Amino acid sequence: MTRTSPMKTRSTTSVHGRFIGVDLGGTQLRAALVDASGRVHKMRRTKTALEGGPDAVIAQINQLIDEVNDGSAKAVGIGIPGSIEASSGLVLGIPALPGWDRIPLAAFVSDRSRLPCFLENDATAAAIGEWRAGAGMGCIHFVYITISTGIGAGVVIDGHVLRGVRGLAGEIGHTRITDHSDICSCGKIGCWEAVASGTALGRRARIAMKASPSSIIATLSGGESVSAYHVGIAARRGDALAIALLKEEALLLGLGFVNAQHLYAPERIVIGGGLSSLLDLMRNDIEAVIRDRLLPGFPSVLIAQASLGDNAGMIGAALQAAAL
Amino acid sequence: MTRTSPMKTRSTTSVHGRFIGVDLGGTQLRAALVDASGRVHKMRRTKTALEGGPDAVIAQINQLIDEVNDGSAKAVGIGIPGSIEASSGLVLGIPALPGWDRIPLAAFVSDRSRLPCFLENDATAAAIGEWRAGAGMGCIHFVYITISTGIGAGVVIDGHVLRGVRGLAGEIGHTRITDHSDICSCGKIGCWEAVASGTALGRRARIAMKASPSSIIATLSGGESVSAYHVGIAARRGDALAIALLKEEALLLGLGFVNAQHLYAPERIVIGGGLSSLLDLMRNDIEAVIRDRLLPGFPSVLIAQASLGDNAGMIGAALQAAAL
Repeated sequence: MTRTSPMKTRSTTSVHGRFIGVDLGGTQLRAALVDASGRVHKMRRTKTALEGGPDAVIAQINQLIDEVNDGSAKAVGIGIPGSIEASSGLVLGIPALPGWDRIPLAAFVSDRSRLPCFLENDATAAAIGEWRAGAGMGCIHFVYITISTGIGAGVVIDGHVLRGVRGLAGEIGHTRITDHSDICSCGKIGCWEAVASGTALGRRARIAMKASPSSIIATLSGGESVSAYHVGIAARRGDALAIALLKEEALLLGLGFVNAQHLYAPERIVIGGGLSSLLDLMRNDIEAVIRDRLLPGFPSVLIAQASLGDNAGMIGAALQAAAL
Repeated sequence: MTRTSPMKTRSTTSVHGRFIGVDLGGTQLRAALVDASGRVHKMRRTKTALEGGPDAVIAQINQLIDEVNDGSAKAVGIGIPGSIEASSGLVLGIPALPGWDRIPLAAFVSDRSRLPCFLENDATAAAIGEWRAGAGMGCIHFVYITISTGIGAGVVIDGHVLRGVRGLAGEIGHTRITDHSDICSCGKIGCWEAVASGTALGRRARIAMKASPSSIIATLSGGESVSAYHVGIAARRGDALAIALLKEEALLLGLGFVNAQHLYAPERIVIGGGLSSLLDLMRNDIEAVIRDRLLPGFPSVLIAQASLGDNAGMIGAALQAAAL
């Protein structure tokens, strides 16, 4: 593979080049070669070598970058599921990855690839992806919310990406929203994530099934632990319990979306993550909550489904590297 | 009074001039001549002519501007307790002021004063005041929260003032935080403002007093309706009920401050409004909630009392006009 120095390859019109986006997840590590319009040209993935600590994972990142780079890449962006110091390219800590304590990841990757490397919080990277190349295109004020096992957000307001201290702005999943006693993944109670994530919906389904033996949710799960996924399928088949569970889920999601509107005043909220595939089933109930609770003066917001799927963070990291 | 055209008076080094800040409140209307360091040189106030509608209030604004302008003013900034379209200088609506529906306030004021005029949401203006000339000076990431009869916020993150659609970002008082059934000023339940504002503290005090006849709160109020103000005085004199009420208030405030940290990731939170004068009595309990609930990775935030008092919005509006 041909490599040249950043100084030679990074032209003044770098938006016409290609860029590598890396998505560092606790389970999976992925890298892609992305063009300036957000199109993925080549992608590679591997299981994250958690146990090996930072050294092993950095070696994996470098390997994936080598595999996707056809020589046209002008910069690398990496989405980090934790806190960063963007200016120095330092990973400060990653809850899901032991040992990532003040690791100069950008420097390691840049030294090896000979490309400029930038770090971004992963939810922020996903927001940038959807904003620049997905369902948030054309917005000036935009919030991306991912709802799967957890809930996270990335925010663009007045055309600026909201980062805050250590890149951590947008941790909306861990805002207090209720007095309910369900324990959150963070160990506390009352978080939005504790009651409205896919994990929470699955938990409610498993409890509710016991009192509703006629529901098809149990049959659908075929012996697996029942999850939000099974609730969605059952609801599409008209199962009464599943429909009631999604109605409750829509109420809980709606409360959080109204919070997001009051806090950030976006013109559009884009929903990603597994539960976003059920948005059509929940939209009416979500919009009813918003109509009920939104302060006078706020315009009605468009709630849209994300369009880049799992690639949003990788694409956003690449596009952010392109913009810098 | 001498007036010259904006083109002649607005030099390229306008930060060395003086600027007029106007605070349009539902009760009181105030204007001040402010220098680039945020110092107030002349201030005038009057009772807002609510009943007269926009025409009467605009006449009052023009009158106050005339009174404070010694000829040195180079621009006018107006803080609006409602929604605005900043680019066109339009007031879209003000909950506390009937009839303010799409009023081109900036144009009216500019035509009369011959000065450029800019609108800003009032909480955002207060945040700008504290950021540029008060307790938020030197911060890059900063949240201002005012706690009095209601709760509002203005936000500066990554050095950018957060405005959002219609300038409405930062309505943190009306984010859902609890399932408690106290009705908020907005008519809904569960808002942070409904449980943690000065109004809410006063309400809790009036209820708790009935069961605690030995408390000095009732005596202090001297027959007036007991308010947060009386709770504060009683707590400083060691009254057990007042101290317990402030402990509960600190818990409720702390929950909202943690939310603000997770949402905006500021390095400092500055507290204004009437209740901020009790911050010293509540600080330990507030900080305990923050230590308990803040996600790993977030640095501890400094909670500081605002330093500009009621003038923050007026000064911020003036300084924003200076910067534009």
